[in-house]
Amino acid sequence: MPRILERTERALEHYLPAVDTVPATLHEGMRYATLGGGKRLRALLCHAAGELVDADPAILDGAASAIEMIHAYSLVHDDLPAMDNDLLRRGQPTVHVRYGEAMAILVGDGLQAQAFAAIGELPASAAQRVALLKELAAASSSQGMVGGQAIDLESVGHVLARDQLEQMHRLKTGALLRASVFMGAHCGAEPMSPELHAALNGYQSAVGLAFQVVDDILDVTTDAATLGKTPGKDAQDNKPTYVSLLGLDASRELAEALGERARAALAPLGERAAHLHGLADMVVHRIR
Amino acid sequence: MPRILERTERALEHYLPAVDTVPATLHEGMRYATLGGGKRLRALLCHAAGELVDADPAILDGAASAIEMIHAYSLVHDDLPAMDNDLLRRGQPTVHVRYGEAMAILVGDGLQAQAFAAIGELPASAAQRVALLKELAAASSSQGMVGGQAIDLESVGHVLARDQLEQMHRLKTGALLRASVFMGAHCGAEPMSPELHAALNGYQSAVGLAFQVVDDILDVTTDAATLGKTPGKDAQDNKPTYVSLLGLDASRELAEALGERARAALAPLGERAAHLHGLADMVVHRIR
Repeated sequence: MPRILERTERALEHYLPAVDTVPATLHEGMRYATLGGGKRLRALLCHAAGELVDADPAILDGAASAIEMIHAYSLVHDDLPAMDNDLLRRGQPTVHVRYGEAMAILVGDGLQAQAFAAIGELPASAAQRVALLKELAAASSSQGMVGGQAIDLESVGHVLARDQLEQMHRLKTGALLRASVFMGAHCGAEPMSPELHAALNGYQSAVGLAFQVVDDILDVTTDAATLGKTPGKDAQDNKPTYVSLLGLDASRELAEALGERARAALAPLGERAAHLHGLADMVVHRIR
Repeated sequence: MPRILERTERALEHYLPAVDTVPATLHEGMRYATLGGGKRLRALLCHAAGELVDADPAILDGAASAIEMIHAYSLVHDDLPAMDNDLLRRGQPTVHVRYGEAMAILVGDGLQAQAFAAIGELPASAAQRVALLKELAAASSSQGMVGGQAIDLESVGHVLARDQLEQMHRLKTGALLRASVFMGAHCGAEPMSPELHAALNGYQSAVGLAFQVVDDILDVTTDAATLGKTPGKDAQDNKPTYVSLLGLDASRELAEALGERARAALAPLGERAAHLHGLADMVVHRIR
């Protein structure tokens, strides 16, 4: 996994405009938001799924970069004063704190466009690039990640039922995690088999949900220094979370059960899915 | 041209999520920002260029919709309080006035993703869709439209030389107008000939610049009711414009000269380019 993290950093360097490209402040902000940090869970999922289909690592690098750019843009916009008004991210000042609010809006907008530009430039067939484009656009869209953020926005101060909370997270964070897995599989030379599709689908839905449950747990159990962002924000903003809905113990049990469900979905793939197994463990047992 | 405007409206209806799709407020905002107004200059340019290569009108509809969604998103974000803080657009309250600032950020983000989703879904070959993706992503990027907005942002209160002003506009509005023309040509079944590329390139650069010069003229000569947006904003914000740099008369002469340059670039194409001629006239002589 350290090898993939290093590859991803180099690939992002390649697919992002250089820091001295005009306009320099904008590109500095885009690189500040994207490089040098983060768990890179999405890039790792993309590579691990791609391994199953013997995908060309150069294609996986480009797909993973595009996904990480979409993720980075979503954090920049989510942190804005009009949204979550967060001051700290990965232990550093957020983009709007450092570059101003207007520039932060443009940094996010530029990163989204750059992600799609990266898909266009990938060293893959036109058919593969179109499959990746469709997957990434759907995941980023108003019926994916942005839709989840809109539901989140409108849910502040409301009591959500558990199925509504799940739907919100399935869009807000789940859609891009799902795309990470399926885009990895699209990087293979052959179309996915129905068996592989079913296994990956079961895996991504359990991992996506586990990710959010653990996020909610960490938000109430972890300090800012470990988390790298401001904890306790959800409770403060009166946002519904798994912890507020189920309590801490039941949330921990749910996370473990979802980890089990992810592992069970991979069973038909045998040993080849070892990296995906490891990532499910990482999601359930992460400390930040 | 009225036929193309009608087609574009129908195509946008098709490529935008329905108003009752969850989350409904977000989709209402996306449709409010995109449907039922605007000059549709970019859609018209796309169709007019596509005519020259006998492109399938259904492909042109999708490409034009994607371009208009990018344009609409850029206006939504440009109007935000942290950016231009505009209250009026096409004679209506801007998106953030109507839906709040956070939702307006998401409306713009969702429209950008939807534009790329539309490219993925076009009834065109994978190679054509990749060509369209590359053109649209480059035009929308930090080295295209978003880059121009960043330069604009940093230029407030500064005196720009004429070449700096031109570079800003070549990115901020020129890049998407350029993409409109070239995407139309990419919708044809055959790759563009070098002659066609040269003619369209000369045309788009002259039309793009003329568009901005006329914009600056209208900003000081036209009332809000005709313009559909707040006039005089540039002077008020101390932004450099062609009128502040050259004066009103010289700006008008420049617009006419650029119209001539656009028409001259089309000369090798003869009668087939009649619609592109008409659009150059529309750009130079528009009153809003």
